Amino acid sequence: MNNVDIKSPTLLLDVSKCRNNIRRMAEKAHKHQLMLRPHFKTHQSADVAQWMRTEGIQSCTVSSIAMARYFAKRGWDDILIAFPVNVREHAAIQNLAREARLQVLCCDRRSLESLEHCINTALGVKIELDLGSRRSGLRPTQRNKIDELLAFLEKSEVFEFTGFYSHPGHTYLARSREDIRSIYARFMPQLHNLRTAYGRQVGFSITIGDTPGCSVVEEFGPINEISPGNFVFFDTMQVNIGSCTYDDIAVVMACPVVGKNTDRKELLIHGGAVNFSKESLQDTDRNMHFGKLAHGAVSGWYGVMRRAFLKSISQEHGLVHAEDDLLKKTDIGDLLYVYPVHSCLAADAMGSYLTVDNVTLSMQPKL
Amino acid sequence: MNNVDIKSPTLLLDVSKCRNNIRRMAEKAHKHQLMLRPHFKTHQSADVAQWMRTEGIQSCTVSSIAMARYFAKRGWDDILIAFPVNVREHAAIQNLAREARLQVLCCDRRSLESLEHCINTALGVKIELDLGSRRSGLRPTQRNKIDELLAFLEKSEVFEFTGFYSHPGHTYLARSREDIRSIYARFMPQLHNLRTAYGRQVGFSITIGDTPGCSVVEEFGPINEISPGNFVFFDTMQVNIGSCTYDDIAVVMACPVVGKNTDRKELLIHGGAVNFSKESLQDTDRNMHFGKLAHGAVSGWYGVMRRAFLKSISQEHGLVHAEDDLLKKTDIGDLLYVYPVHSCLAADAMGSYLTVDNVTLSMQPKL
Repeated sequence: MNNVDIKSPTLLLDVSKCRNNIRRMAEKAHKHQLMLRPHFKTHQSADVAQWMRTEGIQSCTVSSIAMARYFAKRGWDDILIAFPVNVREHAAIQNLAREARLQVLCCDRRSLESLEHCINTALGVKIELDLGSRRSGLRPTQRNKIDELLAFLEKSEVFEFTGFYSHPGHTYLARSREDIRSIYARFMPQLHNLRTAYGRQVGFSITIGDTPGCSVVEEFGPINEISPGNFVFFDTMQVNIGSCTYDDIAVVMACPVVGKNTDRKELLIHGGAVNFSKESLQDTDRNMHFGKLAHGAVSGWYGVMRRAFLKSISQEHGLVHAEDDLLKKTDIGDLLYVYPVHSCLAADAMGSYLTVDNVTLSMQPKL
Repeated sequence: MNNVDIKSPTLLLDVSKCRNNIRRMAEKAHKHQLMLRPHFKTHQSADVAQWMRTEGIQSCTVSSIAMARYFAKRGWDDILIAFPVNVREHAAIQNLAREARLQVLCCDRRSLESLEHCINTALGVKIELDLGSRRSGLRPTQRNKIDELLAFLEKSEVFEFTGFYSHPGHTYLARSREDIRSIYARFMPQLHNLRTAYGRQVGFSITIGDTPGCSVVEEFGPINEISPGNFVFFDTMQVNIGSCTYDDIAVVMACPVVGKNTDRKELLIHGGAVNFSKESLQDTDRNMHFGKLAHGAVSGWYGVMRRAFLKSISQEHGLVHAEDDLLKKTDIGDLLYVYPVHSCLAADAMGSYLTVDNVTLSMQPKL
């Protein structure tokens, strides 16, 4: 990484940390006999996807048709679109189903009825479950609705029921590894019941996709497929939750220092909401932050500055709270390395990566 | 606008509302004999800029070198880069200064010293003031520092002092028109003092750039140039502050409905943080929201649904709180029209507009 060439906010990627994160998750999946179908919405990059392939990963999860199309064109032919069927995108789904083995999510029969009329290629359907995150999906106890959907799928000539999917996003409210394990323990009996009731179907799987759970839990019960996304990069949110340490975070935003206010203990950086998005988080010292600072190294970064944090951001400005030692050694024109609160959103906002070996990696272009 | 063609989250632009917003601000500037130098970071669009030109506007403000370059290439040749000089971008500043009359901001002599060594084209410099927003700039009372900067500028053969600039962003904390006026009244005496002390310089101006103030204030005292940005579109934040009404907001995000949960009074939409960014706001009913809903019309939208709001967003999902009437009339596959909390960030996230007359307008591409 040639620091001199960095002129404006740049999302740096440590390939080694990223590939370690991928390898660790692949090993864990192997150990627990889980199929690993990573969510590509975090990295949106054909290169990162390729590193996954070298770990034996052949299936993926995406969050939009556009993203499915991008990866289908790059040789990924087993794709789960983990977003409720959007009936306005029927034609796009039909086109894509000709290029790859697609699965879609559903929790509402009307969406499928409408889709069935304009599709003539086989399509896998997973029923989405709400295991407590209250975003979308059927609750596991809504057996009448599940049975109604299954009856409909059974009669269909294009749809094939492939199991249940859930993103238990309430693990993001956890603040310890024990919290995460408790959340999993609470919904596990419900998943056992579903497997007993519906698990005889060929190709049936129960898929769970959240980075906190997949990183920390060791008891997967009837779950046989996992689809975490964020784990490739991690971020300060995952550190807070207990999924990883700062040294596992594989991306930082390199931000030029453009101002210094010693009285207020502040450094002004080029780096704002158009780079980080606007996710904030309370750290363990109860400071609301938009990012935490890494120590810079000759090549890359390490650790965390305990008492420094990105305290506010506007469109392109960022204000860093800095204690005396950091103020003393930092000049206008220096770079600060900021761990994002939410790496998925920072990556999406930036649209490309610069590796510490000075290679630019592109991402799925915005339409 | 052909609703049927909208498949996924789309940022709609009502050209008529937008041009009315531009016209109103141009008339106000004319009435108060203020030069209008709008901030283009909100729209980042050559088309919107062109509508400004037809109102007689010939100067602009931008927030980055990349944005300055984009507009310079489109015939804008009087550009203020309202961001502290980034010493890593010297070469880019020098290149750009050959193409357009540039002004940059400064509040630290070291940045200018470093810039002076590698520039040989005339460059305007405004001293940035902190009038209470505590982001960047010198306080008006730091006369020693101001004098030191001026002495440096006077000796320089490339720099030309052109006045003072401030973005009094603390007007964003206002919650009434009276609040905004009080904030202006508080800093006005300080600006009078600066004009008395330094205003004899040729080409001197005092520039203020915030949409709340420029929309509401009628007493501009020694201010002779304004550079608001957000006013072209407005958003729910500006409604809360008192800068505009909902019917002035010129952009909405059209979001397909992909789920419905009548028990929880929720509609699930395709539309999340990658579309809106993640700015939230407490509305007047104390509901934290990521957007408010407009009523749809045959062409465009109007008003606001008082009791509906975007209550949470993740990367691509949005959850709308909906009362019974909205739930009753809304089906999966319908579009909802969501006013963004912060239109600048939503526009930046989306990268293009669809007008209600079905024309796609492009924006400055991300690098």
